[in-house]
Amino acid sequence: MDKNHRIVLAARPEGAPRMGDFRLEEQDKPAPQHGQVLLRTLYLSLDPYMRGRMSDAKSYAPPIPLGEVMVGGTVSEVAESAHPDFRPGDLVLANAGWQTYALSDGSDLTPLAGLPRPSLALSLLGMPGFTAWHGLLKIGDPQPGETVVVAAASGAVGSVVGQIAKIKGARAIGIAGGPEKCRYVVEELGFDACLDRHDTDFARKLAEACPQGIDVYFESVGGEVFDAVLPLLNDGARVPVCGSIAHYNESEGGQGKDRLPALLSALVFRRIRIQGFIILDHYAEGFEPFRQDMSRWLREGKVTLREDVIEGLENAPAGLIGLLEGKNFGKAVVRVGEKAQLPKANNASAKKRKLRSPNDSLIN
Amino acid sequence: MDKNHRIVLAARPEGAPRMGDFRLEEQDKPAPQHGQVLLRTLYLSLDPYMRGRMSDAKSYAPPIPLGEVMVGGTVSEVAESAHPDFRPGDLVLANAGWQTYALSDGSDLTPLAGLPRPSLALSLLGMPGFTAWHGLLKIGDPQPGETVVVAAASGAVGSVVGQIAKIKGARAIGIAGGPEKCRYVVEELGFDACLDRHDTDFARKLAEACPQGIDVYFESVGGEVFDAVLPLLNDGARVPVCGSIAHYNESEGGQGKDRLPALLSALVFRRIRIQGFIILDHYAEGFEPFRQDMSRWLREGKVTLREDVIEGLENAPAGLIGLLEGKNFGKAVVRVGEKAQLPKANNASAKKRKLRSPNDSLIN
Repeated sequence: MDKNHRIVLAARPEGAPRMGDFRLEEQDKPAPQHGQVLLRTLYLSLDPYMRGRMSDAKSYAPPIPLGEVMVGGTVSEVAESAHPDFRPGDLVLANAGWQTYALSDGSDLTPLAGLPRPSLALSLLGMPGFTAWHGLLKIGDPQPGETVVVAAASGAVGSVVGQIAKIKGARAIGIAGGPEKCRYVVEELGFDACLDRHDTDFARKLAEACPQGIDVYFESVGGEVFDAVLPLLNDGARVPVCGSIAHYNESEGGQGKDRLPALLSALVFRRIRIQGFIILDHYAEGFEPFRQDMSRWLREGKVTLREDVIEGLENAPAGLIGLLEGKNFGKAVVRVGEKAQLPKANNASAKKRKLRSPNDSLIN
Repeated sequence: MDKNHRIVLAARPEGAPRMGDFRLEEQDKPAPQHGQVLLRTLYLSLDPYMRGRMSDAKSYAPPIPLGEVMVGGTVSEVAESAHPDFRPGDLVLANAGWQTYALSDGSDLTPLAGLPRPSLALSLLGMPGFTAWHGLLKIGDPQPGETVVVAAASGAVGSVVGQIAKIKGARAIGIAGGPEKCRYVVEELGFDACLDRHDTDFARKLAEACPQGIDVYFESVGGEVFDAVLPLLNDGARVPVCGSIAHYNESEGGQGKDRLPALLSALVFRRIRIQGFIILDHYAEGFEPFRQDMSRWLREGKVTLREDVIEGLENAPAGLIGLLEGKNFGKAVVRVGEKAQLPKANNASAKKRKLRSPNDSLIN
């Protein structure tokens, strides 16, 4: 119990990340100095942005240095405290990353209390929920009766976008990968319809589901989904963009014909606004009003979110790889927990063993 | 003098328009009925949007039917009036199109008085000036000290964008085709710098001219200019788009690698807003404040605009073809005037003679 297990960036991925790009390491558990707390990770959030941080391409945040621990939001428990504001056993929202223990000076911690499930702080009441709320309401601005189309509709952000669209009186049309996810989006989340992007007839079915065209398209995917959406965008449509996950694994520009000219023409002729955003920019002014809205909707039973729980820190790499391929079903979180302590490596070489495949568990 | 000469759309262009896509026709001069005026065209505006109206692709405005007169804004003189509000000799802003005479019921006419040159109603004080004013101030919103980059900087819209940017305290960097235009943009229009897009080293020179990056990019061109601009856009950059002239002549999507994925990534990581607009949407609320601003700046000598005057209606097709190739230098207008009356065709076949090349004048 005196060891910290952590997963570090072993190599920068070319294209899709592979197990060998990650490495599990064992260290001594650190001791908090005066003003610090030692955090024990209970839940680690897996999110698409992590792919970007693995690259050294210029981006809004610095890349993770090779050999450093993978970044990530966590629900953590205070294990030891040398900080006046925190006591052992306190639950906090933290940025402990992909490891079982981490130190903090408290400045980046948010106390968690009164949550039905602590992991909600990583989903509905955390960054994904805030991303959905800000992008849809502050950029998309859907009006009652308008049609809102949501990519990755069963995912952490998309599922919340559609539910907020419904609360605001708009029609919500989801796009998801596979019939099971589509059923969930309609039956559990209450979208008006959901289209399977793998359907050979996808573009035509999307058009049929949007007889009045599309007023807001919440973009997080890119790729062929965008191609099907573009012709349906109405005059004055708004397109908040929080990501383009279909392209995260591309190191060069995409192949095939250049779609930029058609986009520029459509932007002009149909007076379309496309706006990218990074949710980290908006915490100061937006998080508290978001938290109030979302807490109320939760109490009123108006929003829900499926969690796709991955058991054990050692399975986080496979979890992220799957997330980037759309294999998750709901918000991906890793249960790291107290009981997820990894066995001590039984020889020195195992301490830096590379993970090789999603099934290559480190727990024997 | 009792004939109307008009240029009609003879064929829908595939790619760049050619002379054979236009046809000059001679008709009897129409007579105004009660409530109508007969207009004599003095100046015809040539604008890039006309290429779009020649196609039957879905757009914001209906296509010009085959065999119908080409559309266009004009400065016209009232030749005969059966309308209580207009008298012969009145100068008006009209939409008479590519012809020497036209009828109007007066509803689309704006009386012109007090202009230093009547053709200003087609440029600085007309649609191009309003396009620059609205796109830059209402979408681009440049702040003092920010860097504004303007495509087609010697053209009708671009040259005004840069001058307004300077009035608002921003740096104005132009992009134009060729050293002569670039000199004009800096020396006559007062931009801080202007880059020649034909320069083999264009992208690097643009980067050097924008050491603080680009805060507002006024887009009207697309193509390779956009490629050089995209990497320089700052966090929170605004990109008003009023056109993408480099692509107007493409019937299929562009060739080469797909630039959409890189655009979507940049939009997110750098929180960029791209917004298309059609200036026709904004006359009701915006034209009068624009007119007041621009009239004041004109009186104060703060704005100027070079006109590229094409003599004679019969040269309008070559003028538009050249405009789409960037051959104009300043705002393209055709002087149609009283003296531009074409000689009567001396045989029946000549009445529907096709124009074959820019040098194929119809005046022998």
